[in-house]
Amino acid sequence: MSKKNNKIKNIFQVYGYNNCFPLLNQSSYEIISIYILEDKKSVFSDRIDFQKHHDSITFLKKNDFYKRFDNLRSQGIVVSFRGPLIESLSDFDKTKTDSCLLILDRIEDPQNAGQIIRTAECAGINGIIFPSHNSFQISNTVINISQGAFVNMPLYEVTNISSAILELKKNDFWVIGIENSIGAKSWDKLDYSGNTAIVVGSEGKGIRKKVIDHCDFLGEIPMQGSSNSLNVSAAVSAILFERLRQTKFK
Amino acid sequence: MSKKNNKIKNIFQVYGYNNCFPLLNQSSYEIISIYILEDKKSVFSDRIDFQKHHDSITFLKKNDFYKRFDNLRSQGIVVSFRGPLIESLSDFDKTKTDSCLLILDRIEDPQNAGQIIRTAECAGINGIIFPSHNSFQISNTVINISQGAFVNMPLYEVTNISSAILELKKNDFWVIGIENSIGAKSWDKLDYSGNTAIVVGSEGKGIRKKVIDHCDFLGEIPMQGSSNSLNVSAAVSAILFERLRQTKFK
Repeated sequence: MSKKNNKIKNIFQVYGYNNCFPLLNQSSYEIISIYILEDKKSVFSDRIDFQKHHDSITFLKKNDFYKRFDNLRSQGIVVSFRGPLIESLSDFDKTKTDSCLLILDRIEDPQNAGQIIRTAECAGINGIIFPSHNSFQISNTVINISQGAFVNMPLYEVTNISSAILELKKNDFWVIGIENSIGAKSWDKLDYSGNTAIVVGSEGKGIRKKVIDHCDFLGEIPMQGSSNSLNVSAAVSAILFERLRQTKFK
Repeated sequence: MSKKNNKIKNIFQVYGYNNCFPLLNQSSYEIISIYILEDKKSVFSDRIDFQKHHDSITFLKKNDFYKRFDNLRSQGIVVSFRGPLIESLSDFDKTKTDSCLLILDRIEDPQNAGQIIRTAECAGINGIIFPSHNSFQISNTVINISQGAFVNMPLYEVTNISSAILELKKNDFWVIGIENSIGAKSWDKLDYSGNTAIVVGSEGKGIRKKVIDHCDFLGEIPMQGSSNSLNVSAAVSAILFERLRQTKFK
């Protein structure tokens, strides 16, 4: 995977099996340090190439490990590394068929962003596009919550969502906006076949008007209760697995 | 709604529009205090019956309000109240048709529990069953994350999940366990019609063996990526909206 990064100098820290194992088994990252709880050494020996990472690994005794990482759900492993976490959209292979990209407009909460990356990877999405402004940015919180999905999910930061959509449309993408509004189809009545880009907005503000104007179709999830407030990552899960059902399991 | 509560003495605190408005418009709770940011008084006057809650309301000036509630995403309102938050499963109307109950086995994380309650309410689920032990308990975190769904979603705490399942089976419920295992059907091939109880377990540990043994069917969501780790609340969203599609939108 060729991940480029405009923030290549940033150092990130991840912890726990799900984040650290895929990271260490990928060669595109610069591993700065690996702290391992000594008691876990034998357990991890099957999952981590100790020899390859020899220069970066420090085994710590229980006391020393928890003195440093007491506040993390570390499972005995904490890794610091440098990018690349963000790719350029121009690198996306637009010749592939049946691709699906997820576009996040104004999603600011890092917890939601991390959950969405995680869910998208499990649902077979090909990449996530998010804007440089008025958006979450890639952070330790986001990538740790993604539970390792950040390693395999291409993340595209763009300066302008509308331009990105126009570019995708030139490459035969249909663009679906998820927005409760007049004329929106029920989420299960949308056609997710072929190349699609699915746009979701924040819970409070939704998708920006000018972005909605670029959508070919609008879809919504009809609320059954009285609260009328589905978390955006839960909505994404419902949508992406409906797409999966239609395209792979029908 | 007749909510009984074995922890009726516990005082809970909620904040934000989504939690406070439905709570205050329900008469079954004992409202202890309502703190409102004075600047929001006119905005809230349409949503809250100030007269009815006269004895509990305190309007606070900006400084005083944020001195108290600086750490909360309060949106200018914080309410303390006493239960009832938990109902007895014996009160569930088992004569209703096409009911769906969600059973949470060993879900310990309060964030996941809150998100699941929220999603379940949006997806038209009739109640949530969870055990007294090895489980999340109803807390401020859980109910605040539910974003008001706790007011409308019956929550049933039971001492024994297996007994609860046997009781439901006597009342013509089919029980579906969500568990990646041999013989599990793809989530979209399950039949969710009629009275169903859907059992989900924690991400790490899954459903307990003895609970699985009581399930009539097992279902799973086939993972498409390499991380193989879907958050339990995201999995619940995919499952519950597939049920909704099958039962209401097909």
